[in-house]
Amino acid sequence: MRASRLMFATLRETPGDAEVISHQLMLRAGMIRKLATGLYTWLPLGVRVLNKVTAIIREEMNKSAMEVLMPVTQPIELWEESGRAQAYGPELLRFRDRHDRPFVLGPTHEEVITDLARQELKSYKQLPVNFYQVQTKFRDEIRPRFGVMRSREFIMKDAYSFHANQASLEETYQGMYDTYHAIFNRLGLNFRAVQADTGSIGGNGSHEFHVLADSGEDDIAFSTESDFAANVEMAEAVVTGTRPAPAQAMQVVDTPNAKTIDEVSNFLNVSPSQTVKTLIVRGVADDSDPNSKGKYSLVALVLRGDHELNDIKAEKLPQVAAPLTFASEDEVKALGLELGSIGPQGLNIPVIVDRAASVLADFVAGANQAGKHGTGLNWERDAQITLVADIRNVVNGDPSPDGKGVINIKRGIEVGHIFQLGQKYSEALNCKVLGEDGKPFVVTMGCYGIGVTRVVAAAIEQNFDDKGIIWPQSIAPFSVAIVPMNQAKSPRAVAAAEELYNELLGAGFDVLLDDRNERPGVKFSDLELVGIPHRIVVSERGLDAGTFEYKGRRDSDARELSKDELLAVLKG
Amino acid sequence: MRASRLMFATLRETPGDAEVISHQLMLRAGMIRKLATGLYTWLPLGVRVLNKVTAIIREEMNKSAMEVLMPVTQPIELWEESGRAQAYGPELLRFRDRHDRPFVLGPTHEEVITDLARQELKSYKQLPVNFYQVQTKFRDEIRPRFGVMRSREFIMKDAYSFHANQASLEETYQGMYDTYHAIFNRLGLNFRAVQADTGSIGGNGSHEFHVLADSGEDDIAFSTESDFAANVEMAEAVVTGTRPAPAQAMQVVDTPNAKTIDEVSNFLNVSPSQTVKTLIVRGVADDSDPNSKGKYSLVALVLRGDHELNDIKAEKLPQVAAPLTFASEDEVKALGLELGSIGPQGLNIPVIVDRAASVLADFVAGANQAGKHGTGLNWERDAQITLVADIRNVVNGDPSPDGKGVINIKRGIEVGHIFQLGQKYSEALNCKVLGEDGKPFVVTMGCYGIGVTRVVAAAIEQNFDDKGIIWPQSIAPFSVAIVPMNQAKSPRAVAAAEELYNELLGAGFDVLLDDRNERPGVKFSDLELVGIPHRIVVSERGLDAGTFEYKGRRDSDARELSKDELLAVLKG
Repeated sequence: MRASRLMFATLRETPGDAEVISHQLMLRAGMIRKLATGLYTWLPLGVRVLNKVTAIIREEMNKSAMEVLMPVTQPIELWEESGRAQAYGPELLRFRDRHDRPFVLGPTHEEVITDLARQELKSYKQLPVNFYQVQTKFRDEIRPRFGVMRSREFIMKDAYSFHANQASLEETYQGMYDTYHAIFNRLGLNFRAVQADTGSIGGNGSHEFHVLADSGEDDIAFSTESDFAANVEMAEAVVTGTRPAPAQAMQVVDTPNAKTIDEVSNFLNVSPSQTVKTLIVRGVADDSDPNSKGKYSLVALVLRGDHELNDIKAEKLPQVAAPLTFASEDEVKALGLELGSIGPQGLNIPVIVDRAASVLADFVAGANQAGKHGTGLNWERDAQITLVADIRNVVNGDPSPDGKGVINIKRGIEVGHIFQLGQKYSEALNCKVLGEDGKPFVVTMGCYGIGVTRVVAAAIEQNFDDKGIIWPQSIAPFSVAIVPMNQAKSPRAVAAAEELYNELLGAGFDVLLDDRNERPGVKFSDLELVGIPHRIVVSERGLDAGTFEYKGRRDSDARELSKDELLAVLKG
Repeated sequence: MRASRLMFATLRETPGDAEVISHQLMLRAGMIRKLATGLYTWLPLGVRVLNKVTAIIREEMNKSAMEVLMPVTQPIELWEESGRAQAYGPELLRFRDRHDRPFVLGPTHEEVITDLARQELKSYKQLPVNFYQVQTKFRDEIRPRFGVMRSREFIMKDAYSFHANQASLEETYQGMYDTYHAIFNRLGLNFRAVQADTGSIGGNGSHEFHVLADSGEDDIAFSTESDFAANVEMAEAVVTGTRPAPAQAMQVVDTPNAKTIDEVSNFLNVSPSQTVKTLIVRGVADDSDPNSKGKYSLVALVLRGDHELNDIKAEKLPQVAAPLTFASEDEVKALGLELGSIGPQGLNIPVIVDRAASVLADFVAGANQAGKHGTGLNWERDAQITLVADIRNVVNGDPSPDGKGVINIKRGIEVGHIFQLGQKYSEALNCKVLGEDGKPFVVTMGCYGIGVTRVVAAAIEQNFDDKGIIWPQSIAPFSVAIVPMNQAKSPRAVAAAEELYNELLGAGFDVLLDDRNERPGVKFSDLELVGIPHRIVVSERGLDAGTFEYKGRRDSDARELSKDELLAVLKG
């Protein structure tokens, strides 16, 4: 395309109300404009990206699912059947038509697709089946923000599968898991499929797909060597190696004014990883033991000094009360202990020790005496373990729980979610088909979403620098830009640029010829801001030398390339 | 695609509430399903057609316009600015968000695009510019019907252009006129661009694009030889040749009980086209003439007996009152005339004669005496003409007003509309840019719509038979279907069908392999109902003979073709 025919709506200033970089850059690069709170118009450059993202999603989804298109407006009756008319809350936008009939603006389509399925699916022979659509959704967010990252109107690819049984669901689920990998790989994004629950049932009931970016709202723990990934809260912390034999004798030392792990470590000149901290929390009384009341109402949780307690993991232990509640200072004192110097030695309550803390030898802990800590402590000899459990957050460098590589933690932006729905909607809407035995049964469902508009913002959050956006090749609005140098005075450069433009178009490249009546500096800034991956400058000097000036968007310097070299770089 | 993996939701019965053939066939072929009144879910086969239509529209629009995407939901403030919040009426669906702010579901996007333009366009140098989108719209029709032909939620391609002056608008308008021709030609539709007004200003202010189909709601008159086309009400009726010299003497003959043109023609054994009828209507008094009151309050309109009065044309005459009103029987009697035997001879009121009637010689008319008609009548000699005017509907065989070919009248379905908006919205929303002289001026606009979902229905209304839909090649859900004969017992036919399937896929055809576990008869009916243009049957018998059985969707019989012949047919 010729830039003179494209609306370049670039802005030099960063708009004041844009908090995150993708929102700022999408406004500055002229990809979107705000119509009203949480409502955005996509400008030509933005639509080009959006269409490329959508095309990739469609191509991959078409390999195993069928595209449908459901209305944006939905009769509320279906939401009453599913129970979500009440449960969904004020994000569900309701309205009445001219005949006073109640409708909603669809935030999601489980009800509509299940209604379709109960009419169209008659027999187990029609299963499994997987429908998807790319459609506008509306969620009346109380505080829309971050541009298209959390807007009210947005585009989703949502898919819904129907199955005769759980095994069939799991097969399609795995297929969608693979399809999502293919999609996000083709989109050129660094992403991780994250276990979205701890997997108490089946272990793979739900995965979130996160694009890794510093601005993400979630902490993702993933393996450096395998495809293991989980929310930090959900990732299992494992320990390798066994506890060394004791080498030191226990000593009680004065640690005046040293209460925190850092203070104690500094004072004693040991690593925090060689210390433990003991947290007293409310426990669950053992009803079968008449003497348990009170005795077991508190529990000690012991972690390595450099580790953090994971509330969710701790709460799931049968000994620990949920929600997790720390003992009050009075309760601690009633145990004869003092905050700031608690250790696991000689406690009269259950001592639950994190896996990592359980393999320490010769460690440091509170001495259960004010202003004193114990050193050279060893389990069994000096302190007893009731239970070893995983009760901490994983940290960078932890072994991956699948045994491959180590844990790396980064922030992530959720752009996709696949979910084994089971029979939640099919039961509520009575979606049954006839089984092999001639009897009707309720179908089992899965659902699979990708936030199409959000993907665009997430791609920017992952790929930018101080000059602007750096698009992955596959979704760039244009893959190559050609700038004729000294346009006004060099018909030769213009002609050569036109020739190259037509040649590259013919070779299938998505080329922008920047024929605007602007200075080269303005063009270069715009092209960098907009994020075109390859820039070619055609100049008299280059033509004399038989070269083109090439600069990749991530390159710090331009270089002179022959036509053949140039084509090789563009194709590579 | 394999049919076993496609949801074939064909129905044998015609659904009761579907009035028009496209609605019936879209339901029966499994293209759409109703979610609620005027809301339809598009099933996989329907989406395939919809996506092909959309792709063609995008490809053609991209040649001269830029794609954008505006929200479905729009703040009502913009509609208040344009004045349409009130004017649009109850088809404009209004709702309030969770913060009680008023919005509408967009039935069209003039306001939103003009709001964007007034922010983004600063200078005449940015003009002309043409934005388009493919987006869901909502019109709260009081009585949605005919399936997706008149649904509440539908998809439109809408484009809006901005210009410095009328000349620029007209240039883009002509470009869109040509683009629409390219689009509808590629869609494989028989259509006409129809002048949508009589052209009193400029003559080309608006064109409707109609797909010709017997079920259309509008009568379209078009030339057999040129691209002239107009609504029948708007088409100019012209006459060729001049009035012959009188050859007969006037006679008054008894015509007992013959009052209508047919009765008189039969009785006198003349063609209705050799008779005239004289209609007395209310006229406009000539205020400048003190004696005019009453005298000129009636007007005679004279048409050939076989022609019909066009009210709109007659109303536009300065002599005729609007709305057109026929004289009462008493008023006719007061003129000394009698209904059933009125003629233009000796009338004391203006006689406005249609062009075609004005070139008759030796014609028949009422004799202004009960039960009698005049024959051998001639203008000037026997009756005076006040004015010759175009006051009738065109009929088949009339000369085309552009002098090329003759008029053909067919019914049409409006699927597109291009319109020179002028400054209606830009003025209301104060959309100004700086001119060459540094002064701001209000931009001039055009708009250009295509009903994307409606195009699909219109294509069916134009292309079907008693077996089902007959898709134009370019928008068929699949262009070719392959059916292996005796599938269960002939692995050889199955293998050969698979081989052909892969070969055709590789050659770029959109192929459906009907591998369903159904009898051939069922498959054939389904494929005909669904409207696949080419059907190939692979059988043992054919393989022995080295042929494939081929049947085009419009063919009455199948024929045996060699592979080369088959490929030639598919490519042709």
